[in-house]
Amino acid sequence: MRPVAILGIGQTKIDEHWDKSLKELAGEAAFRALEEAGLVRVDAVFVGNMLSPLIDGQNQLGALIADWVGLWGAEAVKIEAACGSGAAAFRAGLMAVASGEAETALVVGVEKMTDRAGREVTSALATAADADYEVEQGVSFVGLNALIMRRYMYEYGWKHADFAPFSINAHANAMHNPFARLHQPITVEQFEKANMVATPINLLDASPIGDGAAAVVLVPAERVSRPRVVVAASAAATDTIAIHSRRDPLFLSAAYQSARRAYAQAGLSPDAIDLFELHDAFSIMAVLSLEACGFAERGQGPRLGLEGEIGIHGRIPICTRGGLKARGHPVGATGVYQIVEVVQQLRGECGPTQVADARSGMTQSIGGSGATILTHILRRED
Amino acid sequence: MRPVAILGIGQTKIDEHWDKSLKELAGEAAFRALEEAGLVRVDAVFVGNMLSPLIDGQNQLGALIADWVGLWGAEAVKIEAACGSGAAAFRAGLMAVASGEAETALVVGVEKMTDRAGREVTSALATAADADYEVEQGVSFVGLNALIMRRYMYEYGWKHADFAPFSINAHANAMHNPFARLHQPITVEQFEKANMVATPINLLDASPIGDGAAAVVLVPAERVSRPRVVVAASAAATDTIAIHSRRDPLFLSAAYQSARRAYAQAGLSPDAIDLFELHDAFSIMAVLSLEACGFAERGQGPRLGLEGEIGIHGRIPICTRGGLKARGHPVGATGVYQIVEVVQQLRGECGPTQVADARSGMTQSIGGSGATILTHILRRED
Repeated sequence: MRPVAILGIGQTKIDEHWDKSLKELAGEAAFRALEEAGLVRVDAVFVGNMLSPLIDGQNQLGALIADWVGLWGAEAVKIEAACGSGAAAFRAGLMAVASGEAETALVVGVEKMTDRAGREVTSALATAADADYEVEQGVSFVGLNALIMRRYMYEYGWKHADFAPFSINAHANAMHNPFARLHQPITVEQFEKANMVATPINLLDASPIGDGAAAVVLVPAERVSRPRVVVAASAAATDTIAIHSRRDPLFLSAAYQSARRAYAQAGLSPDAIDLFELHDAFSIMAVLSLEACGFAERGQGPRLGLEGEIGIHGRIPICTRGGLKARGHPVGATGVYQIVEVVQQLRGECGPTQVADARSGMTQSIGGSGATILTHILRRED
Repeated sequence: MRPVAILGIGQTKIDEHWDKSLKELAGEAAFRALEEAGLVRVDAVFVGNMLSPLIDGQNQLGALIADWVGLWGAEAVKIEAACGSGAAAFRAGLMAVASGEAETALVVGVEKMTDRAGREVTSALATAADADYEVEQGVSFVGLNALIMRRYMYEYGWKHADFAPFSINAHANAMHNPFARLHQPITVEQFEKANMVATPINLLDASPIGDGAAAVVLVPAERVSRPRVVVAASAAATDTIAIHSRRDPLFLSAAYQSARRAYAQAGLSPDAIDLFELHDAFSIMAVLSLEACGFAERGQGPRLGLEGEIGIHGRIPICTRGGLKARGHPVGATGVYQIVEVVQQLRGECGPTQVADARSGMTQSIGGSGATILTHILRRED
């Protein structure tokens, strides 16, 4: 398959956009990406979204958004893999261009979550878990992650405050991202005293929901002059959807598998990754992702935070634009936001949170509590 | 891209399967397809489904079904394009194998619709239309199709009974398909006197909902000895999602575009198609599909039925296993049922409804009232 470049990016601020419909949000990001790419037509549109049937009463987002953006006639579908939907749509668009089936593809991740009451959104998010065996018992999605975090703390002897650096880093970096949902630095004291959601997960362990859309335009790399950003690796894997069915609930096997394949495709080891936009929906997920991807030993992920290795100048900068924790987590859009942010880093557009001479950036997106995991590596070619 | 063969097929009877969960239904079809293919592992799973978030409270069907079928670790996603979801999943699986990204792919279309009250299913199906501009006005999905049919009858001078042959043909053919939802032949008199749903569409113009799953296993053609069934063409296109935005609501432009591309890929004209499994969700849709694909002049589709050309021995046999009208329409699964049925025809497994020496069969699947349309051509290679 041929190499693929990212020619244009677009994103909306993540917020409570009560004045904008789903397609207006998607259009805002898509138009920016198309404008940056200098294109008015694409062959195919891939939309990442999880909740629109439940929140917006709308299916068939592929045709809806292709129509709204004026791409009449283009092939268009929606891809859904819970919170991994955006990354899955990106992978589908990548395959379309890499295989030669399409010359140009638009990938849009979009989610509108704040038009409903909190309990409705909580129910909608629970559709990422196993309806028959998990949700049936009354557990929420944050509840499932809380069980994982509690077990991790018990098994490896960490206390809650040891996770603080992940949230503090994310909030600090989001200060410099105009598209981020939250612009407020936090301290260890605030982290420890935040309102409890599902023990041990409190409000500052958890990422905020929001409305937002992000988009990229993909073309064959040969059509783009250097310097350019190309996709060096793309891999996806799954694990059981119900956590109780896993051999080890503290190991993200789908993260391990997809990262291993991605490293092999890119010909890189973890040491060569300059930044990592991971899926910190909850602080425990950031830890498990770092471990599964080879940045920390099993059970030692919190050490990376405590030793300052996750900051912009650390060994493996994460959440450089705020991550899910502070940039925000409009679930089906998040995977595309991560791609957009890595492109910004590789282009050197990140100001105070720019990773020096970033050449290779990784993203990882997680559907459910580890069931669908996609890993991508982008590379700057000078 | 390399040629792809269909190595295994599986399907469940379409029925009210109150005793089977969504994953059990999907598994039943998937296990049959895998067994026929002689495989216990595949690289990737593509699931077509429209309604599971709304009806079953379940998202992330890719991981769910990969897990249930024992394909731990495999890449897996769900594709949604309203009633075209199954065909869109088939196209995604085809691309994965054709491009070399996967050596083997399992495509599963599944839908479970009968666990809810009729009004809830009607609301869920309406998510295929434009929520802001169509559904907001209170129109149902059948209502939108009724507007199209009424306009067609007015514009071209047909009366309701002229559409009877489509339903009669579908019901007659379904008598010989053990997987069909309905096993009852109908007459013109019954067609004319059936209960009205949304004038002019009555119960015998409309396809029944149902629970069901269909599956296929895809591999590179070079791995399969002849005789074999290969995919000769695959194309997708979209139109505006809202009918009022179309230049001509009586012309399925996405059907025309995707069929034209498919004919070009396969190097065939409509004359060379031996059978056509089309998307007769409503009898008017069968007519519009035949016209857009070159089997009838604009406004003359009903003539094919009245002149007996759509029967097994006619010029263009359609709905040879019952079509959506009588085989049934478990929406997200339907596109995969069509593929399975064409494979059965090309293998010569259809008994009394076998199309003699069928060598090239076409399927067409429609999301919404013409917004997303996918056309596939399968071919027997001796």
